[in-house]
Amino acid sequence: MSRLAGRRVLVTDADELIGPEVVAVFRENGAEVLADRRDLTVPDAAAALIAEAGRVDVLVAHLAASIPGRLATESDDAELDLMLDRLVRPLHRLTRAVLPQMQARRSGKIVVVGAGAALRGVPRRAVYSAARAAQHGYVRAVAAEVAPDNVQVNATAQTFVENPTYFPAEYQGTAEFKDRMRQVPAGRLASAREAATFLLTLAGPESDFLSGQVFPFTGGWIH
Amino acid sequence: MSRLAGRRVLVTDADELIGPEVVAVFRENGAEVLADRRDLTVPDAAAALIAEAGRVDVLVAHLAASIPGRLATESDDAELDLMLDRLVRPLHRLTRAVLPQMQARRSGKIVVVGAGAALRGVPRRAVYSAARAAQHGYVRAVAAEVAPDNVQVNATAQTFVENPTYFPAEYQGTAEFKDRMRQVPAGRLASAREAATFLLTLAGPESDFLSGQVFPFTGGWIH
Amino acid sequence: MSRLAGRRVLVTDADELIGPEVVAVFRENGAEVLADRRDLTVPDAAAALIAEAGRVDVLVAHLAASIPGRLATESDDAELDLMLDRLVRPLHRLTRAVLPQMQARRSGKIVVVGAGAALRGVPRRAVYSAARAAQHGYVRAVAAEVAPDNVQVNATAQTFVENPTYFPAEYQGTAEFKDRMRQVPAGRLASAREAATFLLTLAGPESDFLSGQVFPFTGGWIH
Amino acid sequence: MSRLAGRRVLVTDADELIGPEVVAVFRENGAEVLADRRDLTVPDAAAALIAEAGRVDVLVAHLAASIPGRLATESDDAELDLMLDRLVRPLHRLTRAVLPQMQARRSGKIVVVGAGAALRGVPRRAVYSAARAAQHGYVRAVAAEVAPDNVQVNATAQTFVENPTYFPAEYQGTAEFKDRMRQVPAGRLASAREAATFLLTLAGPESDFLSGQVFPFTGGWIH
Repeated sequence: MSRLAGRRVLVTDADELIGPEVVAVFRENGAEVLADRRDLTVPDAAAALIAEAGRVDVLVAHLAASIPGRLATESDDAELDLMLDRLVRPLHRLTRAVLPQMQARRSGKIVVVGAGAALRGVPRRAVYSAARAAQHGYVRAVAAEVAPDNVQVNATAQTFVENPTYFPAEYQGTAEFKDRMRQVPAGRLASAREAATFLLTLAGPESDFLSGQVFPFTGGWIH
Repeated sequence: MSRLAGRRVLVTDADELIGPEVVAVFRENGAEVLADRRDLTVPDAAAALIAEAGRVDVLVAHLAASIPGRLATESDDAELDLMLDRLVRPLHRLTRAVLPQMQARRSGKIVVVGAGAALRGVPRRAVYSAARAAQHGYVRAVAAEVAPDNVQVNATAQTFVENPTYFPAEYQGTAEFKDRMRQVPAGRLASAREAATFLLTLAGPESDFLSGQVFPFTGGWIH
Repeated sequence: MSRLAGRRVLVTDADELIGPEVVAVFRENGAEVLADRRDLTVPDAAAALIAEAGRVDVLVAHLAASIPGRLATESDDAELDLMLDRLVRPLHRLTRAVLPQMQARRSGKIVVVGAGAALRGVPRRAVYSAARAAQHGYVRAVAAEVAPDNVQVNATAQTFVENPTYFPAEYQGTAEFKDRMRQVPAGRLASAREAATFLLTLAGPESDFLSGQVFPFTGGWIH
Repeated sequence: MSRLAGRRVLVTDADELIGPEVVAVFRENGAEVLADRRDLTVPDAAAALIAEAGRVDVLVAHLAASIPGRLATESDDAELDLMLDRLVRPLHRLTRAVLPQMQARRSGKIVVVGAGAALRGVPRRAVYSAARAAQHGYVRAVAAEVAPDNVQVNATAQTFVENPTYFPAEYQGTAEFKDRMRQVPAGRLASAREAATFLLTLAGPESDFLSGQVFPFTGGWIH
């Protein structure tokens, strides 16, 4: 009955973005969840985390970064590096650390919580969109590599999900926000709980035949 | 606990393709399923079906057609018309018949069981691919139209799903089949049950923030 | 120097949409253009046209239809049929009539002038989007079939192209139009001449290594 | 008559990949081409290059990297960093250095020569695919930002283009290569000259209404 009964799930950046709701929803669905909060920009942190975690049936690569929100011409090398440090390097480290055990068991899932910014461009997102798109490219290639070992790697491309980092309450009252909502067919933000619930599909048996997919979760903003 | 508890679900062409497994899996997940088998190429059949069905919370527009498998130059008007008659016209009739009750309740789902042939071309599929792509184009437009009424319309693009129509047992022994499997990262067919289970995501609350999505279910053959 | 020097190009529905500009731009680029204006909904019209045309190096399948602009629930069977009659059936007939000569010469191009409505949904476009998406699905499948014969079949997905059918002058003054333009990164309509010029790439040698591509031409509205 | 008459075009990594053919083809089409060969991994190199170049009407961001070709589990941080250093950081530096003059003139093009690996996953490409996908994400966001200034930013996703780095002559004789060609509808590699010619469309007036597009150039391997 429980969709993730008996599965050990590791969730990274568990206090950021939709982390708390992922932990809660996955537990409600029977998973044993390891909620990690360490700073994964530290080079050895990912390997240490996987070593400590023991068996990981599902890795939810949930990586957070504050969007700089600057024009490309104002955005320096450091800003790009910060995005890569938070969103791309840790994904590679986590993946290469966790794959061997999954391949050995011929069973495992990596779920990358990605962003719609990778697929549809908006101003003031250049370095953020680059890093988020890198996640998707990485997912597609690794997925093809490990599919024969019955390990599934898939991602979302979510946006318009309620959270205090990207959509603070004061912003939700602005005309700019209302104008953006008019461009979203659903006409609203998703709750963090809805976004977490959607991830169950990529973490459970429903994803056994998915490999390298990037599923938009955007209220219809991205097809 | 049951993902579709209390939902009335209508499944069309219920004896074809993955119809039996959709009916079974949805019932196991708590839905009250109306399994319909009538010939939906008859002009009034769709309207009659919806009228008889009463409340429909979820319409699974599962429409079957035998793939002609001929070269474009050998394929006549009748062959194209057959595909449109089976795959496109009934979708429009079912949709316009069922939408009003969903919009009035401000709640409802249409799940279109689509085909990967719409997204990736292979030889001898011209008229079939056209009709399957038409389903996806229809889904995207209608979804945008009814999203403000809290009705979600989404589709899959499935292929390499085990069924006697497209993958008969004798074909699975051929070199051609084995060669095709080598091009599928998962290296295997999905079972009809797996495909049916994937549809739960588009039929249940996980899809409340999805609108006009087309989700490949192809073992990684289509990104 | 001339991009289409010595090529015989057939343009259908030459008085509709961007037809006049396609004829003009292709002639300026050295092509011998056959500008056809017959009603291609007549079943034998396409075959007769190709028979009369003689050698066709490039078929520009430019098919026009007035967008009904009605809600899905208001759109009857006849409206869908009209879209299929104008946009899908003639494409199949033209293609199967012209392919044999191209395959025999191991050289030829089919350029389908498609619509962005196939890829991104907006309200009141259900049957139109379905028919336009069918064109793309057809293109992908046929392209894969004839690529080994050195025949290239590709399409555009254009929208926001100035023309009196879809964007009459009076509409361009409305608030609705201005609001739509705000959602287009380019912030303007393309001229019909610009759209026609873009087609040169799919008609000339630049497309020798393209097969089954659908290229958006939408001012950035669709990625 | 000449497609790029009077345009000053800067081509980076001009001795790598298809660089020599881009320089030749663009010159044949009337452009004044600056062929640059400096090492753009040096932090200040991009800014110095743009400062020296003076007016740049078209930047062809043609960045080369040797594909490591290792499994994700064998690929260390340094390998990912090398890809980011060669493919992503220089793109950001070049872009922010060249955009101001283009925006001031309200005219300019950035053409990113990208890779199919960003869109379709194959084994042993994880870090390469990540970096190539980052280029596309960057393109989409910057394009939306500068489209109102009449600057167009677009990209290709090319693969199966003949070059000694990715397809050495000895590899072309292998069974693996022949098997890969069977999966490409065109059944062959493109020449570097063909790939360079395709770029003209993104560099010339044909791209005035394109913004943030990623055009596959893959012989039909990617739709």
